[in-house]
Amino acid sequence: MASESGKLWGGRFVGAVDPIMEKFNASIAYDRHLWEVDVQGSKAYSRGLEKAGLLTKAEMDQILHGLDKVAEEWAQGTFKLSPNDEDIHTANERRLKELIGETAGKLHTGRSRNDQVVTDLRLWMRQTCSTLSSLLWELIRTMVDRAEAERDVLFPGYTHLQRAQPIRWSHWILSGAIAGNPLSVDRELLRAELNFGAITLNSMDATSERDFVAEFLFWASLCMTHLSRMAEDLILYCTKEFSFVQLSDAYSTGSSLMPQKKNPDSLELIRSKAGRVFGRCAGLLMTLKGLPSTYNKDLQEDKEAVFEVSDTMSAVLQVATGVISTLQIHRENMGQALSPDMLATDLAYYLVRKGMPFRQAHEASGKAVFMAETKGVALNELSLQELQTISPLFSGDVSCVWDYGHSVEQYGALGGTARSSVDWQIHQVRALLQTQQA
Amino acid sequence: MASESGKLWGGRFVGAVDPIMEKFNASIAYDRHLWEVDVQGSKAYSRGLEKAGLLTKAEMDQILHGLDKVAEEWAQGTFKLSPNDEDIHTANERRLKELIGETAGKLHTGRSRNDQVVTDLRLWMRQTCSTLSSLLWELIRTMVDRAEAERDVLFPGYTHLQRAQPIRWSHWILSGAIAGNPLSVDRELLRAELNFGAITLNSMDATSERDFVAEFLFWASLCMTHLSRMAEDLILYCTKEFSFVQLSDAYSTGSSLMPQKKNPDSLELIRSKAGRVFGRCAGLLMTLKGLPSTYNKDLQEDKEAVFEVSDTMSAVLQVATGVISTLQIHRENMGQALSPDMLATDLAYYLVRKGMPFRQAHEASGKAVFMAETKGVALNELSLQELQTISPLFSGDVSCVWDYGHSVEQYGALGGTARSSVDWQIHQVRALLQTQQA
Amino acid sequence: MASESGKLWGGRFVGAVDPIMEKFNASIAYDRHLWEVDVQGSKAYSRGLEKAGLLTKAEMDQILHGLDKVAEEWAQGTFKLSPNDEDIHTANERRLKELIGETAGKLHTGRSRNDQVVTDLRLWMRQTCSTLSSLLWELIRTMVDRAEAERDVLFPGYTHLQRAQPIRWSHWILSGAIAGNPLSVDRELLRAELNFGAITLNSMDATSERDFVAEFLFWASLCMTHLSRMAEDLILYCTKEFSFVQLSDAYSTGSSLMPQKKNPDSLELIRSKAGRVFGRCAGLLMTLKGLPSTYNKDLQEDKEAVFEVSDTMSAVLQVATGVISTLQIHRENMGQALSPDMLATDLAYYLVRKGMPFRQAHEASGKAVFMAETKGVALNELSLQELQTISPLFSGDVSCVWDYGHSVEQYGALGGTARSSVDWQIHQVRALLQTQQA
Amino acid sequence: MASESGKLWGGRFVGAVDPIMEKFNASIAYDRHLWEVDVQGSKAYSRGLEKAGLLTKAEMDQILHGLDKVAEEWAQGTFKLSPNDEDIHTANERRLKELIGETAGKLHTGRSRNDQVVTDLRLWMRQTCSTLSSLLWELIRTMVDRAEAERDVLFPGYTHLQRAQPIRWSHWILSGAIAGNPLSVDRELLRAELNFGAITLNSMDATSERDFVAEFLFWASLCMTHLSRMAEDLILYCTKEFSFVQLSDAYSTGSSLMPQKKNPDSLELIRSKAGRVFGRCAGLLMTLKGLPSTYNKDLQEDKEAVFEVSDTMSAVLQVATGVISTLQIHRENMGQALSPDMLATDLAYYLVRKGMPFRQAHEASGKAVFMAETKGVALNELSLQELQTISPLFSGDVSCVWDYGHSVEQYGALGGTARSSVDWQIHQVRALLQTQQA
Repeated sequence: MASESGKLWGGRFVGAVDPIMEKFNASIAYDRHLWEVDVQGSKAYSRGLEKAGLLTKAEMDQILHGLDKVAEEWAQGTFKLSPNDEDIHTANERRLKELIGETAGKLHTGRSRNDQVVTDLRLWMRQTCSTLSSLLWELIRTMVDRAEAERDVLFPGYTHLQRAQPIRWSHWILSGAIAGNPLSVDRELLRAELNFGAITLNSMDATSERDFVAEFLFWASLCMTHLSRMAEDLILYCTKEFSFVQLSDAYSTGSSLMPQKKNPDSLELIRSKAGRVFGRCAGLLMTLKGLPSTYNKDLQEDKEAVFEVSDTMSAVLQVATGVISTLQIHRENMGQALSPDMLATDLAYYLVRKGMPFRQAHEASGKAVFMAETKGVALNELSLQELQTISPLFSGDVSCVWDYGHSVEQYGALGGTARSSVDWQIHQVRALLQTQQA
Repeated sequence: MASESGKLWGGRFVGAVDPIMEKFNASIAYDRHLWEVDVQGSKAYSRGLEKAGLLTKAEMDQILHGLDKVAEEWAQGTFKLSPNDEDIHTANERRLKELIGETAGKLHTGRSRNDQVVTDLRLWMRQTCSTLSSLLWELIRTMVDRAEAERDVLFPGYTHLQRAQPIRWSHWILSGAIAGNPLSVDRELLRAELNFGAITLNSMDATSERDFVAEFLFWASLCMTHLSRMAEDLILYCTKEFSFVQLSDAYSTGSSLMPQKKNPDSLELIRSKAGRVFGRCAGLLMTLKGLPSTYNKDLQEDKEAVFEVSDTMSAVLQVATGVISTLQIHRENMGQALSPDMLATDLAYYLVRKGMPFRQAHEASGKAVFMAETKGVALNELSLQELQTISPLFSGDVSCVWDYGHSVEQYGALGGTARSSVDWQIHQVRALLQTQQA
Repeated sequence: MASESGKLWGGRFVGAVDPIMEKFNASIAYDRHLWEVDVQGSKAYSRGLEKAGLLTKAEMDQILHGLDKVAEEWAQGTFKLSPNDEDIHTANERRLKELIGETAGKLHTGRSRNDQVVTDLRLWMRQTCSTLSSLLWELIRTMVDRAEAERDVLFPGYTHLQRAQPIRWSHWILSGAIAGNPLSVDRELLRAELNFGAITLNSMDATSERDFVAEFLFWASLCMTHLSRMAEDLILYCTKEFSFVQLSDAYSTGSSLMPQKKNPDSLELIRSKAGRVFGRCAGLLMTLKGLPSTYNKDLQEDKEAVFEVSDTMSAVLQVATGVISTLQIHRENMGQALSPDMLATDLAYYLVRKGMPFRQAHEASGKAVFMAETKGVALNELSLQELQTISPLFSGDVSCVWDYGHSVEQYGALGGTARSSVDWQIHQVRALLQTQQA
Repeated sequence: MASESGKLWGGRFVGAVDPIMEKFNASIAYDRHLWEVDVQGSKAYSRGLEKAGLLTKAEMDQILHGLDKVAEEWAQGTFKLSPNDEDIHTANERRLKELIGETAGKLHTGRSRNDQVVTDLRLWMRQTCSTLSSLLWELIRTMVDRAEAERDVLFPGYTHLQRAQPIRWSHWILSGAIAGNPLSVDRELLRAELNFGAITLNSMDATSERDFVAEFLFWASLCMTHLSRMAEDLILYCTKEFSFVQLSDAYSTGSSLMPQKKNPDSLELIRSKAGRVFGRCAGLLMTLKGLPSTYNKDLQEDKEAVFEVSDTMSAVLQVATGVISTLQIHRENMGQALSPDMLATDLAYYLVRKGMPFRQAHEASGKAVFMAETKGVALNELSLQELQTISPLFSGDVSCVWDYGHSVEQYGALGGTARSSVDWQIHQVRALLQTQQA
């Protein structure tokens, strides 16, 4: 049997409840986010109770009125938490009882806090997904606006961070905007899941399944992965060595030590948040792993993860929109970074068009690259005679190859970097944007 | 310039290529999985080249015939890799050239290995998702079959692993089957994405975006999280202390030391694989984080992750199906685990139906539980007089409360544990299964 | 060139600085944790400046005095942040300048905020590691106290959650305490790393390397993994089915729906925090992955991770200590859970001692288990004659096998479950505790 | 009771054992790594049995001889696995019995496979850590050799990827080598843990605790994080835009499409492996989370993780060593990347030395940077008169500031980039290397 104090060995506290435990257990600190949806859910539930004959019409009205009062207090910042308010549900019901008396006790008939919390969270996420979605669309709109206006700027496309082929600047922008696009589809899915049109099929599963949280956190992680890659590109383009773009002062900071520095802090923060957001996703999945079915207190971890990730995404999307909308591009530097060796593939295609199999043409073009390197000249400075030592198929018209604008125009297939293809991409994204606004 | 040996300081090897690097770089070891889709993709591409006028009809036929030959060699296990076959694409093209000569060199016109590998992987995943989907449906079918046959077995529902209320065994089974259900929706999404009906909007994005891989790995992680929870429940139900179920010998193993042991290894392995699968998902996202746009060799990490996870999922789903289909349930133990205190909520509802607000009724029922504990009797052994000291609303009809069958039948709302509701759930899942087979 | 507004397309804000960016960039919200160590670091640094001749004695005294004033304001809660205080360093230096004038501007000579923040964080972690270490030792002390007092209680040892062999309750407790033990060694390491006796070897590495943060987060993750496993055991032992232990009310909560419930929330929260803490570790490593050398703003993610994990560990260790110190054990239930089949290994050892190779003995004992199951009797109810049909080596002295106390006493090897061995383990842990207090 | 087929519903297989389960359960596929340490462990154990009187001297000799035979078969590749060899322990003992008969059955007296596997893994890790350690030291040696030989090369130091201050190339190399250094300390820890001088304190903990695995995986993850950052730097330095270094052909690959490309595949693979290795660490921790105490089959996940990570680390360290040892540096490009604005901090220090508080000096230098930008000249092209409009403290000796060599020589404090400090760092690392070889 327990000793009277309930304490057997060691330990730190006396009395009935360990105050550390109380704090550890309580979720009220972050539950505040949920006041609005908790009231909303309780109002709906009291209507259900009346319909089921468990509340009279008068009782329901009393409860609805009281809940409105509770909401008003929260909205005006006058709601006072009492020390025993363990969570938002207890707090609201406690206050309701103070306002309308014993009838408040009927509100909880037939539901548990486990139901309530999961319903509240679903309602809250419906709101937050809608907000984040708007911010994401705003980012995409900004990107497509720039893409349209700057269609004529060429600069190097990279693979493995090595200069590969000339591309349009707009083509790069749209590669980000398009990556953003499928995400919004995910959000639509989530919305569909959250519109509560569908009934949860199984009561055990309903309280313990957190797929909607895990999927939200994963959506955010994947979205941040994309944004971290876009940020990485822009950080590189901001370096002295690349000098393709210049970040607005609004999104840079100076150094406390080095007067000449202007650092791309905004982009670095965007890049870094990928880790934080994914960490929350990883943490939740680990918490869920091996958990017995139905509700376990472990599930309380879901809320802080969702709140923090939602705040992070909101800030990241707004800052990214600001960065993109104020970014200066350095057209001349972009142009100067194009070099004839980036047309080596075009040189191979020239030979393909003259009938040579691609593998041979690739080899021939490689020989030309090597010859130019050996002679210390640019690829387009090789004479026709020199080229003809590599293949007799070279003739005078090879000079047409050395035109960057001509090079990009070859890629007219959908998704390519030709003007027409970029226009088509812009059109596709605009069409999506219009669907959104409709 | 480099010294002749190309080596400046230290290091281990001499000669042009570091053999460790060659091995490190080569993907052929696991690329073999892709032989079939690589041939399939190349056949489609050669048809495209012919249409674009880059191959004559005769050349195309020669290539198609040659590729069929390559496929035949793989299928019969006679394809011989050469030491320079860095990846599946090089290997197949090298062999094609041996078979049909220089025309083979035209096949690669206008595409890069970066395109090829991502197309191959998408094709392969379309196949593997279809297989995994069938295995998942087989598991769900097995579960719903059991749920239907064993609808009349009651046992304790738990929250926080504490006995809560009586539920139907089928209700538990369906909570797992239903958790499985949304996953299949995800798979449908994936299928839709992979059917290539839609065009990739941007060429830069197409080669470097790995959302379809990340989403597959996350789907698998979430699916494994569900299965780890189902496994945890069954491991508990297998313990001597619970003794609700008995695992078939086919899915158990003995101890090398303790002759009496029979261990639920199959379930423990299922539970453990959640970690492995999630680890692959976490690893891929970390690899993607901050990567510059377009193709970087880092992306090569995607394939082994997908192959391993696909194999793991395939084994897990089959073993889970086997476990569920051969599991024995111990009806008597399940019944004996039901105890009157699990009807305390029913006792509160009894008072609610007599007009008492739920909060008071909950408190009154709590007092009854405490009284029974103090007197050392079961809750249903309290006399009417004793109950009436708690509330005058108790009368003779309170005896109806002490019937487990009656208790579960109260939960007739959709998703509840009443027979009708469980039947409805079975019907819903069966309807889904039929949609699948159609 | 930029337009005057600095904004080219879309975007939301006007003016020089995006307020969202300012908030996104600022670390002051959580930097407050660092006020004390920041002052401490600056005081040390100003002494260094004086020694290097960059401050006069009078200037140093002025700065030291001013910094004490700043600290006083923080301690008394009167320090007022100004809107431009981006981080704790700027805030403290701004305030110092208000208090002592231009001399304050000399304090930053030759150091950057990147140095400052990493020094501050190291100092803060030295403090926090010391606190967490004390809490960990308190938990271990509580466990060893219980282990000593309850040495004579036997209960089933489990593997695969199947009853394996009888063990002492203290043996289980010490398996946790001992698991805790290596952690404290890690902490010692960390302390050693943080005592700044050693000089950071390279200035580039010093500002960008965050091994000490990553290692702290991993230590916490591993520690939480151990605690999650201890919590899992105790949650099981709290179930009605096991009923080995009873959690004090101080660490349980009731159900809002089911009056009879008493849920082990404290243990579930401990278990769940493993996910959260690991998520922070995972997030930081992802943030670090692929980061260019030296300081990047991404590194700002380290602080919130460390603060949150430190708070979590502090709460978890205190609650775990409270749980262990107030836990009731149910000796009778523990005893009744021991069953003769758990002595099957002893039966095999009996035969080994009579000269039979272990593999054969294991098989013979297995046959006895099977015979007992078939006959529906307990293993110790098989008659001598029945046993002799399995092996002629069985004789009258086999009855000694059926004694649980005798069984555990066999395991006298160090680390075993015999009384002497458990005493030795207690002694080892106590010795460690004494080393700590010295 | 089960039906005869043991199958109740659905399912795929007939007969006593599900072949998928058998494969799922068996660890023999990757257990092969352990053959040597398993024999080693069994030989030690049989000596222990003899000492304990459980084996006669003759029996022990027979077993030792048989085990040597088993080892010989493995070494020569003639060991034949039989279909029932579930793991390496069963396989070796089965073979031993074939070789020496029934005496083999005595070898397993008093130990379980759970003990065996954890002992084997510890022994294997002792070997593998020693190998990896040598490879790591080789990498460090290569780096310090280069650092010594190329001490006189200056190039820009970056923070936030913006040019910050001139540094020595050796300073950069050593920031990597030094980051590697603490890792070797970790390895020493691990060695100490694995030398088995210390006794595992608790038998329950001994079989289920996997700290040594988790710590190894975390060490590898942290090490890979460092290497991913070094790889990122070098990938940037390889770009056309930076052109500071050139990768040896042995560690580059070409493009199948673009003849002019030379891609830093080796570095990209090193960077990408950080994700894979961390994924294994994350997976193991998730598997461990919430696992009941003692052995559970879940723990089987540890081995494949360790084997894969060990192979990956081995390849990565060798390739990194090769890359560093054959890397060409472009001295002229490095020099040309230094620009006068990187001396703005030096300009501020000039004023500090003339008595100006640093904050004012920082501001004055910032004004000079702005003035030069406005006038379109380099910072060092401002005339003395122009500078004096900013501060009267500027005089003729300001010209000394514009010398990069002089600038780096200022940082003579330990850890700085002055020649003497870099020499000291080289000396420190060499001293460590010598400790290793002793």
